[in-house]
Amino acid sequence: MDTAPVRKACCAALEIHPLDAERTEELTASFKALADPNRVTILRVLAAADEAVCVCDLEEHLGLSQPTVSHHLKVLADAGFLSREQRGRWAYYGLRPGRLAGVAASLRDWAD
Amino acid sequence: MDTAPVRKACCAALEIHPLDAERTEELTASFKALADPNRVTILRVLAAADEAVCVCDLEEHLGLSQPTVSHHLKVLADAGFLSREQRGRWAYYGLRPGRLAGVAASLRDWAD
Repeated sequence: MDTAPVRKACCAALEIHPLDAERTEELTASFKALADPNRVTILRVLAAADEAVCVCDLEEHLGLSQPTVSHHLKVLADAGFLSREQRGRWAYYGLRPGRLAGVAASLRDWAD
Repeated sequence: MDTAPVRKACCAALEIHPLDAERTEELTASFKALADPNRVTILRVLAAADEAVCVCDLEEHLGLSQPTVSHHLKVLADAGFLSREQRGRWAYYGLRPGRLAGVAASLRDWAD
């Protein structure tokens, strides 16, 4: 008799899944973009800065080559986490808080 | 003159980094554990269920073999996201909300 409610809980949960396949893909893409120590560091640096940060400063901070830093910035920008502004020869990056808050809200919902 | 405050903002941010290397590693490990569509689905199913869910129901729902589901559950459990309870021949899994809430709080902090 013990397993019946558990099975019911699971089947109720199954029903929500097909409707949310798109959201699952979106969240997975977000987590993949976040799953790298250099990209986590970039986000922390940008979060701690009061203004957009020059790509030249990020290169210096991370101690990585320009193409490698550009790759990480592109992954984060493609996932919707960064804004980018060209100022003369340098690009400046900032956070797009809405996307980060959206991922946070999903994790928060699961935890509640 | 335009670049001075930006550079300052970046350098201020740099100073926080060495103290937080451990947290960066921890967050990266969490995001790696989350960066898979089957694992996102498992978390969503567990979040929607009122009780712990039998591994047998997860296998059926995901349409994956037992070893594959066990692998995904192990990754999530090792990252601290799941609780596991053995009941007779079956293992039952539930969420550990504190860990999910901790990751959500970091993303939330970055967004603020």
